Amino acid sequence: MNYTTMSKEALVQLEAELKEEYKRYQKLGLKLDMSRGKPSSLQLNVNNEMLKMPITEFTLENGLDVRNYGGVDGIPEMKRIFSDLLGIPTAQIIIGGNSSLNMMYDTMMRLFMLGLGGHEPWKKLDKVKWICPSPGYDRHFAITETLGVEMITIPMTPTGPDMDMIEKLVAEDPAIRGMWCIPLYSNPQGIIYSDETVKRLAYMETAAPDFRIFWDNAYGIHHLFSENKIADILALCKEAGHADRVLYYFSTSKISLPGGGIAMMAADEATAAEVRGQISIQTIGPDKVNQLRHARYFKDADGVRARMRDLARHMVPKYQLVLDILDEELGGTGLLSWHKPEGGYFITVDTLPGCAKETVALAKAAGVVLTGAGATYPYGKDPRDTNIRLAPSYPPLDELEQAMRLFCLCVKLAGVKKLLAE
Amino acid sequence: MNYTTMSKEALVQLEAELKEEYKRYQKLGLKLDMSRGKPSSLQLNVNNEMLKMPITEFTLENGLDVRNYGGVDGIPEMKRIFSDLLGIPTAQIIIGGNSSLNMMYDTMMRLFMLGLGGHEPWKKLDKVKWICPSPGYDRHFAITETLGVEMITIPMTPTGPDMDMIEKLVAEDPAIRGMWCIPLYSNPQGIIYSDETVKRLAYMETAAPDFRIFWDNAYGIHHLFSENKIADILALCKEAGHADRVLYYFSTSKISLPGGGIAMMAADEATAAEVRGQISIQTIGPDKVNQLRHARYFKDADGVRARMRDLARHMVPKYQLVLDILDEELGGTGLLSWHKPEGGYFITVDTLPGCAKETVALAKAAGVVLTGAGATYPYGKDPRDTNIRLAPSYPPLDELEQAMRLFCLCVKLAGVKKLLAE
Repeated sequence: MNYTTMSKEALVQLEAELKEEYKRYQKLGLKLDMSRGKPSSLQLNVNNEMLKMPITEFTLENGLDVRNYGGVDGIPEMKRIFSDLLGIPTAQIIIGGNSSLNMMYDTMMRLFMLGLGGHEPWKKLDKVKWICPSPGYDRHFAITETLGVEMITIPMTPTGPDMDMIEKLVAEDPAIRGMWCIPLYSNPQGIIYSDETVKRLAYMETAAPDFRIFWDNAYGIHHLFSENKIADILALCKEAGHADRVLYYFSTSKISLPGGGIAMMAADEATAAEVRGQISIQTIGPDKVNQLRHARYFKDADGVRARMRDLARHMVPKYQLVLDILDEELGGTGLLSWHKPEGGYFITVDTLPGCAKETVALAKAAGVVLTGAGATYPYGKDPRDTNIRLAPSYPPLDELEQAMRLFCLCVKLAGVKKLLAE
Repeated sequence: MNYTTMSKEALVQLEAELKEEYKRYQKLGLKLDMSRGKPSSLQLNVNNEMLKMPITEFTLENGLDVRNYGGVDGIPEMKRIFSDLLGIPTAQIIIGGNSSLNMMYDTMMRLFMLGLGGHEPWKKLDKVKWICPSPGYDRHFAITETLGVEMITIPMTPTGPDMDMIEKLVAEDPAIRGMWCIPLYSNPQGIIYSDETVKRLAYMETAAPDFRIFWDNAYGIHHLFSENKIADILALCKEAGHADRVLYYFSTSKISLPGGGIAMMAADEATAAEVRGQISIQTIGPDKVNQLRHARYFKDADGVRARMRDLARHMVPKYQLVLDILDEELGGTGLLSWHKPEGGYFITVDTLPGCAKETVALAKAAGVVLTGAGATYPYGKDPRDTNIRLAPSYPPLDELEQAMRLFCLCVKLAGVKKLLAE
């Protein structure tokens, strides 16, 4: 039943019925949270053995005592696992603390205060602009916003951000110093950057002398329905003569534990060496014991991949449930569009123009918290007010079903109201 | 025997003997390191139980799952221990990762890029100057140097930095935005700031509207020969109407483990709230599991204090050995001055003017690495070239004795050479 072609009378009748149903939901006193990409308790249990494992051998393969000072950029045991997992030489890897976001923020701060690669610190520039493929990750946008960077919203396509637009903009405007990317299973849409997109990002000419791609490969091995691989941005940039363009980030937050994981960054060898030098002024070093705990628990890259398959077994039924309910409740209504992601942590939907905020507000008033509408755009402003990020990972299946039924009802309510107002 | 009053002939004779002795040392092929304040392996063993302890209960007292996201400023269990230990209300405490230096650096970066308390970001100022009580901590000075801050060397007195000089400078020059302090058992001299010094720091009027004291209480509970306490800088600043003046730092690096500890910062409640907001843009949060591991292992502040007494039992004999050898070899020679610290991690000595670099170079050439001469001063420049930091914690007693005998020989060699050249 396509709502968009219904008569006004039918819509009025439908709205009355939907309102009755909504009232029944309100009486249930639901309290459900689908707002953030948090692993569920069952997923966290998958790695409980890691927290039971005693550390009794302290000497690292480089001879350092893991308990003592030293090793500002990480231990070789853990660097090797990251290296094998992501296909990046260990010399290009720097390990940090619990949060890869922290490493991105710190890199950005250093680009402003210290500069990198002999380029002047960005604090000296009148203006810094940034390419923000959107919808995107709200915490990325929060970093650039807090530093006063002017964010330029670029639409996503099924193969990644709109490269025609990006190539044109960066070629013309030297104030554009970089961009955010989540190349595999993008947050929130689950889009996979095509090989051509990655190649164009590596090869494109930029007016800025030090254009930086913050390559947040957050979901680099977070496969669900099929295993996908993106092109090697570090190799392509080197090949294109832009070796220092990419700053690469990854973490085990959704592999081991969000509350006790390990983050890493990578870059070409010269940039990594320079960043290592900058970091050695910043810190005595990250927690090495937790790195060793991870290395001994996972053993090797295959150990990590096996664990990811265990975690996916918890995620896939939730994804399937969300997709099934969307299909059942809203398929063919013309009120909502979405696509099935092959991995990552989110399913993204688009309502009719102007209906996202209303949908999220309706859900909230009935006890289901979603990611704020607009959060997936720079400055929290979704220009068409259509995009909503669904995070199915945290609630158990029964709660997820309730939340999704209510969500679909809210989409219908907001959609019908909009159609009636036209 | 006072070398400084000896005849030239006697000195020439002495120098020949010392050179012979030095040659014998060179033949030993020593390879000893007294350069950094690293705990010894035996000290690290004191906390091995912490690394064997399984974590099997995950719910924190605030209801959060320690394994998951959330709690950007630390877990209540660990905040309470820090609070009891240091006499700072939990609302004023923010817990970080492994390194308190990292928290200092990050605060400094935010002061430059974002500002704090409504004051303009320091990147907008033509010049930022900084009070650096010296000798001091080389890594502090590295932070201010890397950010282009002009460092002003202020001499230390037995009761803390020279307050007359500081009060005069900060009252006159608005470019002076802050200072480094290690108030208890200062690095490297082990000086204890007197109550009057702390009070004057809290009450002094500054031309800068946002003068910040980076209060690195690194050795706040690291007692050796007696237990000393400093005045409450946070309370005094509040009383003086300068509540937001102090940024307070502490860590468990030398309590639990340098390679897997916990750092914290504190400030007045309003500043702490603002910093918490800034940090929530920077990071998903620090490792909470390690905080819980610490809280369960130490149990409470008394548990931490008990552990510090265990650690001191390893340190005291080393301190005593160093002090005894200095006394035996150099007491009354007029070549070296030092005083006995009551806690901390270092013993600092002063050679005759112009002899520190030579002494350290001589030791190095015979296989004993000391902290670089000058490292304890801004820009690595000790104006009189007298100061050497001795770090007795790491080597075992027998190696420490060897290193110290050689060190004393090098002091004599450099001193006699200097006296002969006059």
